[in-house]
Amino acid sequence: MTKSALQIARAAYQPKLPKALTGAVVAKEGEPTQSVADQEEIKKLFPNTYGMPLIQFVEGEAKEFAPMNVGVILSGGQAPGGHNVISGLFDGIKKLNPANKLYGFILGPGGLVDHNYMELTADIIDEYRNTGGFDIIGSGRTKLEKEEQFEKGYEILKELGIKALVIIGGDDSNTNACVLAEYYAAKNYGVQVIGCPKTIDGDLKNDMIETSFGFDTACKTYSEVIGNIERDCNSARKYWHFIKLMGRSASHIALECALQTQPNICIISEEVEAKNMSLDDIVTYIAQVVADRAAAGNNFGTVLIPEGLIEFIPAMKRLIAELNDFLAANGEEFNSIKRSKQRDYIISKLSPENAAIYASLPEGVARQLSLDRDPHGNVQVSLIETEKLLSEMVATKLAAWKEEGKFVGKFAAQHHFFGYEGRCAAPSNFDADYCYSLGYTASMLIANGKTGYMSSVRNTTAPAAEWIAGGVPITMMMNMERRHGEMKPVIQKALVKLDGAPFKAFAAVRDTWAKETAYVYPGPIQYFGPTEVCDQPTKTLQYEQAK
Amino acid sequence: MTKSALQIARAAYQPKLPKALTGAVVAKEGEPTQSVADQEEIKKLFPNTYGMPLIQFVEGEAKEFAPMNVGVILSGGQAPGGHNVISGLFDGIKKLNPANKLYGFILGPGGLVDHNYMELTADIIDEYRNTGGFDIIGSGRTKLEKEEQFEKGYEILKELGIKALVIIGGDDSNTNACVLAEYYAAKNYGVQVIGCPKTIDGDLKNDMIETSFGFDTACKTYSEVIGNIERDCNSARKYWHFIKLMGRSASHIALECALQTQPNICIISEEVEAKNMSLDDIVTYIAQVVADRAAAGNNFGTVLIPEGLIEFIPAMKRLIAELNDFLAANGEEFNSIKRSKQRDYIISKLSPENAAIYASLPEGVARQLSLDRDPHGNVQVSLIETEKLLSEMVATKLAAWKEEGKFVGKFAAQHHFFGYEGRCAAPSNFDADYCYSLGYTASMLIANGKTGYMSSVRNTTAPAAEWIAGGVPITMMMNMERRHGEMKPVIQKALVKLDGAPFKAFAAVRDTWAKETAYVYPGPIQYFGPTEVCDQPTKTLQYEQAK
Repeated sequence: MTKSALQIARAAYQPKLPKALTGAVVAKEGEPTQSVADQEEIKKLFPNTYGMPLIQFVEGEAKEFAPMNVGVILSGGQAPGGHNVISGLFDGIKKLNPANKLYGFILGPGGLVDHNYMELTADIIDEYRNTGGFDIIGSGRTKLEKEEQFEKGYEILKELGIKALVIIGGDDSNTNACVLAEYYAAKNYGVQVIGCPKTIDGDLKNDMIETSFGFDTACKTYSEVIGNIERDCNSARKYWHFIKLMGRSASHIALECALQTQPNICIISEEVEAKNMSLDDIVTYIAQVVADRAAAGNNFGTVLIPEGLIEFIPAMKRLIAELNDFLAANGEEFNSIKRSKQRDYIISKLSPENAAIYASLPEGVARQLSLDRDPHGNVQVSLIETEKLLSEMVATKLAAWKEEGKFVGKFAAQHHFFGYEGRCAAPSNFDADYCYSLGYTASMLIANGKTGYMSSVRNTTAPAAEWIAGGVPITMMMNMERRHGEMKPVIQKALVKLDGAPFKAFAAVRDTWAKETAYVYPGPIQYFGPTEVCDQPTKTLQYEQAK
Repeated sequence: MTKSALQIARAAYQPKLPKALTGAVVAKEGEPTQSVADQEEIKKLFPNTYGMPLIQFVEGEAKEFAPMNVGVILSGGQAPGGHNVISGLFDGIKKLNPANKLYGFILGPGGLVDHNYMELTADIIDEYRNTGGFDIIGSGRTKLEKEEQFEKGYEILKELGIKALVIIGGDDSNTNACVLAEYYAAKNYGVQVIGCPKTIDGDLKNDMIETSFGFDTACKTYSEVIGNIERDCNSARKYWHFIKLMGRSASHIALECALQTQPNICIISEEVEAKNMSLDDIVTYIAQVVADRAAAGNNFGTVLIPEGLIEFIPAMKRLIAELNDFLAANGEEFNSIKRSKQRDYIISKLSPENAAIYASLPEGVARQLSLDRDPHGNVQVSLIETEKLLSEMVATKLAAWKEEGKFVGKFAAQHHFFGYEGRCAAPSNFDADYCYSLGYTASMLIANGKTGYMSSVRNTTAPAAEWIAGGVPITMMMNMERRHGEMKPVIQKALVKLDGAPFKAFAAVRDTWAKETAYVYPGPIQYFGPTEVCDQPTKTLQYEQAK
């Protein structure tokens, strides 16, 4: 691998650990825990891993540990810092006993099931310290859900003498990690399972998990380019930039980027849903900001849009549901209609409310909603270019307002979508330290015989030395939710809370940002400069943790 | 303006100057110069500014200078470092005489014509040191070409007592700066005009101008996100990423980014033209690399595409020319044809060669070529999403090859277009120093009574102290070219040279990069770290200047 100058310089960075982990460590156990809801059902489903105590690691007497082998899996979408979780885990188990071995399963959970693995030696680990990406062993989206997968996995774990498996993933992967922990515990297989909270989306967090790793770096990378675009916008003064941001359902990324860059508009899906806003409400809101700025002579601006927006608009959800049902039942008739007549055909068949919304959509989007369906026949909402949909509808509304004299100005739009640009960025100091600490903590949970725990590092707005490392029983974060028609025990997904400090901070100033040009230009992540530049956690974390 | 932590820290950076400029400076004049071609015609067009000598600034005796006022204009697209040109110019004239004043014309050359200006005081300048963007006075695309504009400009220059005007722009703006210099000299108006070489596109360079400012920072910003995408690509191992890069005609940006990130494929427009490649040739080349990688089990990759590609494909150029002519002559008939029949109509009317190419285009692109025309009726080539056009055509070809057994694998694509993300990034150390030196040099050219010169800073791969500062007569870079049907004196645009060192370095290794996964991850621009991370010029410059 040819390395860039930055990669070479950055390889030497020694991630910071909580002080309690730097020497010999003992586990301090707290009180037994409860799941956040549905206690009886969760307890019944996890008889061996329910109710376990919180763990905190503190300095203690050195102990000797027998040699052991550990396995690790990267699950789901990439997030900056995954390699540091693995190097923290590696250093942790080597400190316990230099004879310990670490195995990586290749290309995600599928590697466990298919017995595709490699030993991660010191030489390999050293190549990947403080780097972005999941390429050390690759990642994948196979879901570990079925007993036959658990059994196939156990075969290779037994063969390799693996005592514990660390699964690095998001809410679903950690839910599955807990199901696997429970299964192996029930079977007395002697294999522990530990989870690590990964996702740039920021939606895996709760009282014990302050943030998921990668959110910090990804948001800072997006904010860098958003800030650059804002500066361009404010220099050329002739475009509205519509910027869609990854993050699936939750709007944490859009909100954090807004707090960092102060755009003119940022839509928050959770608010759209709570206020029962229609697509037209959103378009009208944006158009009004455009018109007000135009009246002040400013024919430019920036708009941030969360990826999952469409599915949070209640009326769009109803439209999509009716479309799915209608097309499933009448697919053949629909396909026999001439392409140029399909739109009118659908409008004639939908309920009046949904027909009106469908008729208001730009042609391309309407076509996409009726044509591009997944193998189950469902509309593929994620393919909709929401940034273009909104700007086209805003343009149409402004043209009408111009006729009425309500808009005097120009409107020209540029479109962007950022996602892949940030998921594999080299981790910021925060993510480098946080991930390394999560991995190191996982090794301590293993050494202490724990299973069904998630590695937890808290107090993360303080300097790393003061961070609190420990373990949280995964069952503690669970409730029962309907998934694909069945009630399942799952980790609660954390959406943006409208009464939370980050959203309230945003809501308090957004009208000013809309009117004035209050852009902030964060610039690229710095690794070597002054601490106020290099070591700040996200604004979200700062607001949430502020006492 | 709310400032980010990085902006605050970066404001303190003192850009480096060539050693010769740090004390008192004298101008050393060389031999008279000639234009690069068409000497007789250029000489006739520029009787007052032709044949002037090269200037080099060296250390000398301190002199006193009478107070003077200077004007500055930012022209055309943004490029990182524009603010540093202005701060270098400001510091330069203040050093000559603290009573000197600097005026900025607002929103580009239009500000001169419309008498829209502001005084740039020390307080204002200090807010913008080492920042990206052109927002200090804004930029614009008004072309200074007509005598009435020159006269309107002179009115305000006279009113403000401005002795010299600095125009910061690309090849066209500098050509116009020279025409203006000649005009004011011929009229004996006593206003000097100095140009500064700006453009991220990198196409304003020659023997005396080693690089245009902004190219360094923009390419490094694009390479950061390309590297991040490559790392994602190599972690998920399931997508081909098609990445289009800004840069108008020339492929310098794509080539530089390729040298920095080592993608599997990078198309160079100048090579496509030289080899008379067709669109199908390009598609076949990409599809073959995809198929070869798939055969080795690698169903992923990255492709870089220069923005201007379409217009460099000789056959596409011919198609577009025929379409323009045909639609100009038959627009009414075309518009009366039913939308769903328009494609067939056009195919029936074009010459066989062009009809075949038009028929091979994906529907969306074909529609765009016939429908989206500019006010002159011309096809708007820049609106074509080349990255999607190529990936769709590659998908079609691979599907055919699959039937024939020539392709065994999967092909799924993601698309990106980077431009606005890098034009206003905070300047790298290189651009911060280079721009500051260009502006400072401009002040010395003014002090020495020069007009029709471009500020020149050479030896730029050496440490800044060893850079050579001076001035180049703009006429020296000119030749006669046909523009809008007329022969005009213009600065020669520098396209990628196929016998130049950067392209040859790329061509020597691209087959290896296609086959192997040789990605390099440059990471974000660093401002504070070790010099090998923070202070490297572009690979293009390093190859070009290597002895």
